[in-house]
Amino acid sequence: MEYRKNAVGRLIPKEIEGRKLVPFKGAFAYRKRGHKASPPISYSEPGEKKLCKSLKDAILAAGLKDGMTISFHHHLRNGDGVVNMVLDTIADMGIKGLTLAPSALFPVHSPVIEHIKNGVVRNIQGSMNGPVGEFVSYGGLPTTAILRSHGGRVRAIEDGTLHIDVAFIAASSADEHGNLNGVYGKSQFGPLAYAMADAMYADKSIAITDTLLPYPNLPISIPAIYVDYVVVVDSIGDPSGIVSGTTRITRSPTRLLIAKYAAQFIRESGLLKDGFSFQTGAGGISLAITKFLGEIMEKEGIKGSFINGGVTRFAVELFHKGIVHSLFDGQVFDTESIDSFRDDTRHSETSMSQYANIHSKGCLVNRQDVGFLGATEVDTNFNVNVNTHSDGMLLHGIGGHPDVAAGAKLSMIVIPSFRNRIPVIRESVTTVTAPGETIDVVVTERGIAINPRRDDLIERMKGSSLPIKPIEELKDEVENICGKPAPPRLKDRIIALIEYRDGTYIDVVREVER
Amino acid sequence: MEYRKNAVGRLIPKEIEGRKLVPFKGAFAYRKRGHKASPPISYSEPGEKKLCKSLKDAILAAGLKDGMTISFHHHLRNGDGVVNMVLDTIADMGIKGLTLAPSALFPVHSPVIEHIKNGVVRNIQGSMNGPVGEFVSYGGLPTTAILRSHGGRVRAIEDGTLHIDVAFIAASSADEHGNLNGVYGKSQFGPLAYAMADAMYADKSIAITDTLLPYPNLPISIPAIYVDYVVVVDSIGDPSGIVSGTTRITRSPTRLLIAKYAAQFIRESGLLKDGFSFQTGAGGISLAITKFLGEIMEKEGIKGSFINGGVTRFAVELFHKGIVHSLFDGQVFDTESIDSFRDDTRHSETSMSQYANIHSKGCLVNRQDVGFLGATEVDTNFNVNVNTHSDGMLLHGIGGHPDVAAGAKLSMIVIPSFRNRIPVIRESVTTVTAPGETIDVVVTERGIAINPRRDDLIERMKGSSLPIKPIEELKDEVENICGKPAPPRLKDRIIALIEYRDGTYIDVVREVER
Repeated sequence: MEYRKNAVGRLIPKEIEGRKLVPFKGAFAYRKRGHKASPPISYSEPGEKKLCKSLKDAILAAGLKDGMTISFHHHLRNGDGVVNMVLDTIADMGIKGLTLAPSALFPVHSPVIEHIKNGVVRNIQGSMNGPVGEFVSYGGLPTTAILRSHGGRVRAIEDGTLHIDVAFIAASSADEHGNLNGVYGKSQFGPLAYAMADAMYADKSIAITDTLLPYPNLPISIPAIYVDYVVVVDSIGDPSGIVSGTTRITRSPTRLLIAKYAAQFIRESGLLKDGFSFQTGAGGISLAITKFLGEIMEKEGIKGSFINGGVTRFAVELFHKGIVHSLFDGQVFDTESIDSFRDDTRHSETSMSQYANIHSKGCLVNRQDVGFLGATEVDTNFNVNVNTHSDGMLLHGIGGHPDVAAGAKLSMIVIPSFRNRIPVIRESVTTVTAPGETIDVVVTERGIAINPRRDDLIERMKGSSLPIKPIEELKDEVENICGKPAPPRLKDRIIALIEYRDGTYIDVVREVER
Repeated sequence: MEYRKNAVGRLIPKEIEGRKLVPFKGAFAYRKRGHKASPPISYSEPGEKKLCKSLKDAILAAGLKDGMTISFHHHLRNGDGVVNMVLDTIADMGIKGLTLAPSALFPVHSPVIEHIKNGVVRNIQGSMNGPVGEFVSYGGLPTTAILRSHGGRVRAIEDGTLHIDVAFIAASSADEHGNLNGVYGKSQFGPLAYAMADAMYADKSIAITDTLLPYPNLPISIPAIYVDYVVVVDSIGDPSGIVSGTTRITRSPTRLLIAKYAAQFIRESGLLKDGFSFQTGAGGISLAITKFLGEIMEKEGIKGSFINGGVTRFAVELFHKGIVHSLFDGQVFDTESIDSFRDDTRHSETSMSQYANIHSKGCLVNRQDVGFLGATEVDTNFNVNVNTHSDGMLLHGIGGHPDVAAGAKLSMIVIPSFRNRIPVIRESVTTVTAPGETIDVVVTERGIAINPRRDDLIERMKGSSLPIKPIEELKDEVENICGKPAPPRLKDRIIALIEYRDGTYIDVVREVER
């Protein structure tokens, strides 16, 4: 295999499985020219019937065949029932060799492993959280998986890199004409943002709902013009599984300290003023920072512009108090947020293209002041790993991480300096997910490192009481406590590619020895 | 010139100005295969600036050149200030030979005539109401114009027939990133539905607003991902000009009788029951029918599904009373309707693709029970003319007429049998806009004609007290009163093509002798 070194020093094969790979050149150094993908022309006439008697009927009608690509969205996260249901049906139908292109897979999707073994699934293009990632890490997938960020996935769909033959769209409510939303029905999950590009660009799309409502089903997140078939099933999943991680503010003193440092840093950075905007998610540290920032803003009368989320009740509270003017929402994590999303026009649905598509005419991540982000590892070049652990296991998806890192004025990694006595700050990350050039600050309980590229920020923070120090120092401290972790035991075979948001390749993931 | 006769018996040239024409084959007989148009890939990075100092700067930035195609939407109708402003600027810049592709032109746009004369505008693809149509009728345009319905226009944009180089989008409010709506600002006009396909498919799009609001401008009708530049001007127009015709219920006894017949016919047709839906507009007869139907529904406790509009306060009233469940809205005609549109999620914005695109996966017109439509002429084959007068003058656009006629379960022409002593019911219409096969009933003050193709309806209406009679009889009665109008004095030259919603050609319009 012939390799080229990319801009973060990783070796990228020139070609793999017939796919020519452009090595990562820098966060904004590669610009693809050309035109967007062009889905087939459809035809609409009176009396058209979209309602199918069964999932199998819909799949037959959509013309699914061996070797095609099917897609899913993950708004129901670890509560999703649709991926497994569809794969079981497809397996029964004897269709094989599919590429599975979910926006993300979760532990609930471990039956996918059986469908890889029985030949139904031949490739995966999408984020893998948990068991499927583990299975792929040990070489279980016969082909090379591709992981993309939220912005990278929509870009890939729009520019034709990821062609979807049949999109399966779970909707908590639908009408018989295919107007879909996630805010009514028994399995509400909020926006349908992840699935918009799938619906718009797939050759065929099948809506799957457990609540069929009379026409017209309003509000419309995905309109009937993008939906070929509608199937009613008993259950699309269990919304309580949306919250697979935590949506509570951390109680760990270490993590609270990180959140405190982060909030203080933002305050001192000069960004925390009227019009302030940030991205937050559902993690414990992130929620604590949201709370702390909200308290400062409320106390000081600062009127924020927007929170871009993963929306939780903590963000909704700031919104309802008028501390921030609006919410942008691609994923909802709790019931309070669904209510707000449904009822308030300033709590606005954000398609992934609006959120983070580098091939758009302007996306939201570029408008954010601050993004708080997690990591499994950060290295002394500020490169961030969110995909693998230090043993090389591919256990996490990408989310919007590299998108936010590249777009936000201040991208901030908020992490403990080690976990289970394994260092998080390292000389070199196991896998590069986001390039160091897009990371401004790393905040740990042990100190804060500013990227030397941000001399403006270093200058600004001079005299701060915060424990600001070089990242090498942080690394040394952590290694003094934990020692260096053993290098992962890897085979030669590349089991996954990490695609950067612009379509270049930033790293590869290799098979782990058992 | 070589001609072929189409399915309504009109002669269509095989080719005109290098454009090969497919003759109309029947309302659902032609199905274009292939893929949608693919707009260029854009690029979005932090710090991008879209705000231009002047319209000229934006046009320069968009790279407008001689011979290109520019587009506009007509939500401001006869109050629009943007078309004239843009053309004046382009003329000053010395750019020539453009194709003007507005969704529609109105009398306020008569300065377009000067821009045709000075060579700035070389072709028009869009509806023409009034003076520009008159000028084109007398041969003023150096090329052949093309008229399309709302559904036909979005289809043409999406399938690449109408490629837009630069779209100009008037927005009553915008933020600097290009999030647009028509519900805030000093020149509110409601939805931005006509312009959505322009924004999505044009190579470049320029938003023009007179109210720049802080980011993010919510709700978003057209998102920033589709907008390249934003220009702030003093005024985008005068919203009071939206109502160029009438938005009052007719007081003419003749027209009230027509409305009464129509409402009665609908009631007897069996369609007026729970789940009833209809399309209405802003004309006096149409409003009277809306009122009469609302009264029947309220009295009899019938719960309607939706009204598809051109929305007026009369439709909003039925909505607020709960007589209909929801409103679909592509064009608003009064302030009350703008308020309702902005504030109620069940008053839903309808892109033209959702409304009427035959190349979609399912459009709204196919879901309507009844559509009330006007006409300048109807003939004994039920063919309808909405474009020309009997003297051949091209004075009206198409609107959604052929779309609704083709989609609705009951398409109903509601017209006086003659106007100014000129017959409306004729042996053969001057121009075919909508084919007779898509028209079910013609309601006049003098009687009601049911299309013989609808034997089910004829059967159903047997025994009705309504004055139902053959259309030939109506025609004879009217000719007895008015005589036959003189045939139009036409030259050979084709000055405009009437494109059917599926992209075939249903008729041509010839130059009128002065």
